[in-house]
Amino acid sequence: MTHSKCKVALLHAAGYAGRELARILLGHPRVTIDTLTSRTFAGKPIWVAYPSLRGESDLVFTAPDDLDLYSIDAVFVSAEHGKAAPLLKGLIDAGYDGAVIDLSADFRFRDPRIYNTWFGHTHPAPELLENFTYGLVEIRAPYGNDSKWIANPGCFATGISLSLWPLAKNLSRFEAAVTALSGASGSGTRPTATTHYPTRDGNVRAYKILGHQHLPEILQILGPHADIAFVPVSGPWTKGIWGTAHVTLPKGVTAGNVASWYHSAYGSARCIRLWPNALPELRYAAGTPYCDIGFVERDSKLVVGFALDNLLKGAASQAVQNLNLLMGWPDTMGLFADG
Amino acid sequence: MTHSKCKVALLHAAGYAGRELARILLGHPRVTIDTLTSRTFAGKPIWVAYPSLRGESDLVFTAPDDLDLYSIDAVFVSAEHGKAAPLLKGLIDAGYDGAVIDLSADFRFRDPRIYNTWFGHTHPAPELLENFTYGLVEIRAPYGNDSKWIANPGCFATGISLSLWPLAKNLSRFEAAVTALSGASGSGTRPTATTHYPTRDGNVRAYKILGHQHLPEILQILGPHADIAFVPVSGPWTKGIWGTAHVTLPKGVTAGNVASWYHSAYGSARCIRLWPNALPELRYAAGTPYCDIGFVERDSKLVVGFALDNLLKGAASQAVQNLNLLMGWPDTMGLFADG
Amino acid sequence: MTHSKCKVALLHAAGYAGRELARILLGHPRVTIDTLTSRTFAGKPIWVAYPSLRGESDLVFTAPDDLDLYSIDAVFVSAEHGKAAPLLKGLIDAGYDGAVIDLSADFRFRDPRIYNTWFGHTHPAPELLENFTYGLVEIRAPYGNDSKWIANPGCFATGISLSLWPLAKNLSRFEAAVTALSGASGSGTRPTATTHYPTRDGNVRAYKILGHQHLPEILQILGPHADIAFVPVSGPWTKGIWGTAHVTLPKGVTAGNVASWYHSAYGSARCIRLWPNALPELRYAAGTPYCDIGFVERDSKLVVGFALDNLLKGAASQAVQNLNLLMGWPDTMGLFADG
Amino acid sequence: MTHSKCKVALLHAAGYAGRELARILLGHPRVTIDTLTSRTFAGKPIWVAYPSLRGESDLVFTAPDDLDLYSIDAVFVSAEHGKAAPLLKGLIDAGYDGAVIDLSADFRFRDPRIYNTWFGHTHPAPELLENFTYGLVEIRAPYGNDSKWIANPGCFATGISLSLWPLAKNLSRFEAAVTALSGASGSGTRPTATTHYPTRDGNVRAYKILGHQHLPEILQILGPHADIAFVPVSGPWTKGIWGTAHVTLPKGVTAGNVASWYHSAYGSARCIRLWPNALPELRYAAGTPYCDIGFVERDSKLVVGFALDNLLKGAASQAVQNLNLLMGWPDTMGLFADG
Repeated sequence: MTHSKCKVALLHAAGYAGRELARILLGHPRVTIDTLTSRTFAGKPIWVAYPSLRGESDLVFTAPDDLDLYSIDAVFVSAEHGKAAPLLKGLIDAGYDGAVIDLSADFRFRDPRIYNTWFGHTHPAPELLENFTYGLVEIRAPYGNDSKWIANPGCFATGISLSLWPLAKNLSRFEAAVTALSGASGSGTRPTATTHYPTRDGNVRAYKILGHQHLPEILQILGPHADIAFVPVSGPWTKGIWGTAHVTLPKGVTAGNVASWYHSAYGSARCIRLWPNALPELRYAAGTPYCDIGFVERDSKLVVGFALDNLLKGAASQAVQNLNLLMGWPDTMGLFADG
Repeated sequence: MTHSKCKVALLHAAGYAGRELARILLGHPRVTIDTLTSRTFAGKPIWVAYPSLRGESDLVFTAPDDLDLYSIDAVFVSAEHGKAAPLLKGLIDAGYDGAVIDLSADFRFRDPRIYNTWFGHTHPAPELLENFTYGLVEIRAPYGNDSKWIANPGCFATGISLSLWPLAKNLSRFEAAVTALSGASGSGTRPTATTHYPTRDGNVRAYKILGHQHLPEILQILGPHADIAFVPVSGPWTKGIWGTAHVTLPKGVTAGNVASWYHSAYGSARCIRLWPNALPELRYAAGTPYCDIGFVERDSKLVVGFALDNLLKGAASQAVQNLNLLMGWPDTMGLFADG
Repeated sequence: MTHSKCKVALLHAAGYAGRELARILLGHPRVTIDTLTSRTFAGKPIWVAYPSLRGESDLVFTAPDDLDLYSIDAVFVSAEHGKAAPLLKGLIDAGYDGAVIDLSADFRFRDPRIYNTWFGHTHPAPELLENFTYGLVEIRAPYGNDSKWIANPGCFATGISLSLWPLAKNLSRFEAAVTALSGASGSGTRPTATTHYPTRDGNVRAYKILGHQHLPEILQILGPHADIAFVPVSGPWTKGIWGTAHVTLPKGVTAGNVASWYHSAYGSARCIRLWPNALPELRYAAGTPYCDIGFVERDSKLVVGFALDNLLKGAASQAVQNLNLLMGWPDTMGLFADG
Repeated sequence: MTHSKCKVALLHAAGYAGRELARILLGHPRVTIDTLTSRTFAGKPIWVAYPSLRGESDLVFTAPDDLDLYSIDAVFVSAEHGKAAPLLKGLIDAGYDGAVIDLSADFRFRDPRIYNTWFGHTHPAPELLENFTYGLVEIRAPYGNDSKWIANPGCFATGISLSLWPLAKNLSRFEAAVTALSGASGSGTRPTATTHYPTRDGNVRAYKILGHQHLPEILQILGPHADIAFVPVSGPWTKGIWGTAHVTLPKGVTAGNVASWYHSAYGSARCIRLWPNALPELRYAAGTPYCDIGFVERDSKLVVGFALDNLLKGAASQAVQNLNLLMGWPDTMGLFADG
């Protein structure tokens, strides 16, 4: 029954996360894409922005100013950090009362002061923050019945938080030394010096060393007893994040303990795959909705490794998991071949 | 005797060709770099622009406006197309009378109308064109004794002209169907949509199909009896150009004829390597001052292949060959380990 | 109704084409994978061979010797060239009477002498050749009612034949000069000197110049009035083939004629996308079941470009199109999000 | 005076390290390559093994069995681990008394039991171990006057030891959590599953997690008060190693202390470049004889980063530094444009 499908709007959808959202939702059995907005591509068919989808949809981009959310059940917002908050505040003030899944950082923090400290600006709608649920599915779901606004987690934050969460739950205090490398699609569609091919090819480059804005996001999830040193790195590939976390285990904690914590935390989570006594390879996670997590212990030194597609589990497929949860469906609907 | 070294200035030297020129000339036994100009890096040591050279030189960039060519023996100009002509006209009007090696397209053509047709602007100093020598070394050298201004050839033009020249000399008429792929360094240092890593990685993309501005340069060398269809292509790597030219041989021309034409044309050219009965691989030419040329014949179908480093034989090392020739030295001085 | 699903077996399924077949068929609405064989992975779950599919299927590889085709409706054979023929002859002799889709070259030619000339061996079952349909869907379908054995086309042959077919239909004679580059997945899963990362990275390398075994396959489709010079090339990427064909148009043939020929030939073919006045980019075709074809004309010189994923339209997704056709379903069932 | 040049032999020189050694030594002002051995390439000119050097040398490979070291001043051995020891024992037993620079691991350890534990075999010539100098130039030089045999350090060991040495000298105890990624040239010329292009492209993969054989090498240099957790990783590029080491600084140690330790340790080392308050990028070190080291501190968390070319500072150029030192020349002779 087509009329019963969930109607969604994708706002600021011309970027990479928007493309992945469109691709997934075109195949989702219970969703129909009603609207995509883009200032740049307004009036053009979606394949002009995403040529790989040419032939698969007749959808046309709408100008942001022509947006009409009447009869829309859910919106996904893929605006840049700092632009989603005023946009969503406007929609809510104008009466929009459907579901919201915001892929930006604008509603990820409970404490509005974090925006001043880490993002360099005052949050324009701090009163909305407490109504957003931080949508790290495998840790935070099931959500409360009144959840209808989701702050979709950051890509690094998803990988690091999921891979350290079983330790955070079971250790009273721990330090983790994290080095995580991201492909170039994580930087978005706008060309910059660090995504210039001659600069990126064959290169590895750290940035925001010990000071990346995903750090407070990670600590908000893991808790203040987690002490994280995080070095984000740009690697010479397009898709996916791969990282290691080094942890020294407290006396008495065995490899067996660690394994049981991970299995217990994620045993039934379809979008997490555990690789005990190994670290996952990036290529198996790239292009999938999985976060792969592995762990290796030797002489009380533990290395936890993780791999995920920054545009999927780190953005679009996790956003679809969140839509599914808000709608009361299985969280993986539309993400796998079996439905 | 240091005081007898040739003093050179590198103008607009902060790009990739400038970096390669600086790298080569720092090791040249008879050249000293006196000046490098860059608006962006004025006052900064060269390693800020070329970090790989950190530790190898104390040179500091000069602002273009502070340029002083008193006592300079030769200038290399790496300005963008359209910017070299007014710059050089200014220098010449101001009395500079040393050697000039211009790496832009601004003085490559004898016929000023080509600038209107192919570059979309009227040439600002057409009276200078006839005094420039087109510096395709292995075809045009030795130059006349009065040559002191060189128009250094384009990268595609170098590869295509060198690889087809023996045919042009020996056939009264021929058609060549050329497909040539370039790495991303050929697009310069400025990030653009086509050099954005997620766009370039794993991608192949043609552009200016049958209409690239190197075509008139090629025809100026080969002559009007050459009929060239040229498809330039962007490939997913950084260094080097690799291409094929398909030619149908006239009746009676054998593979043996073709081989003898190539050996006769280039037998003593140090910077050309012939690969008979093979097409050259890109990796052997990348990073070297060679243009590698190969050819394979079957049933009167001939395929000529070529490979060269667009920044070296296609720009900087060819420019050094040209300096060497202007100074009366062996053309390869400073390009090889043996001097 | 699960019991009505088509049951298929994937033989020698541990390679890249087998992986893509398994991935597609796991999501096909009317197919169920009954059996996968692999000598190397016998007894192991499929994710050991294809880790990216871990979590999506519990299938286990069967040893080839344990193969039981009772109740199997169709087999896909992904054996190496030369190994599929004896395997299939054995199955047929043993009474297997279901559908066959062979991805090797072993049944692509009507004339058994081609195996001696191009593959260096005598065909072991020449009597079967006439019963195979060459499964180049958009040219050869609909198949005869008695077709049940399909020789799935080669990857280069698919791209070149599809892109030149409209010319072959409409010109009494034409020459095409083809240069086509393939990613490394086309070489299969076995490591070799030419797929060694340091050898392939940043490199371009031609091979079997003017003598590739896909040439007779192309001529068998296009006809003897097509005269093709084909240079196959290895490029530095994993997925996809990209190529150009240069053709000199006969007098009187216009760009408009050419465009109408292509639209007429492929207007309703879902798996072909035309890009008039452009050449397709590889990245839009990679990972899709499309063959993208573009064409540009200037002064009677025509360049036709094509791009396809060698493992999909060049192997697995075309094989699924063929299964669909044999079963009487729409040819694209299971290949797109909309079913 | 050519007759006074140092004559060297490169044994088992057909691999990547041999190629880099040959390339460097062809340009070395005081060295002449007398002999290169290779079983595979015996009788062939060196460009067959290293086509990029075609045109630059007429040297021909000698079969290992035809080796004649009479009048040879120094040998470089690039044999695989386990094969250099019997080879060198044979040469020494046969009376060879010139300099030796062994690039394998066979003479890096003083304690022969390490070969049993980490390499799985008993050392065939333990009596020679004490006569080898571990050639980590910037830490171990000047060598004793009687040094003439050098064990050239491993590539990971060079980067990790050099980057942690200033800490090891100044802290009574410290832990470092190291994640270091290597390009594919580190795996040598033989194709394997992990260097297969489709496997390596876009992939990141850890191996020998917490158990790499360079670990005892590192500890032998740094001392037992260093506690190192090391995760070696394969990255998708060809040249170079890039890594991070996380260290928690003891109370009272400031960023200023750390900076002064590094400057003091390496202030005059030409082949080490320090990047204070930054981590080095891989691309600036790749293709150079440098080990680049950077460090960033925040709240007593220190991250040390390093980058080097595994075939140069991690093998061939360090070997040339060692030759220079044995000969009493400046260690960087032949490595830089200025001599």
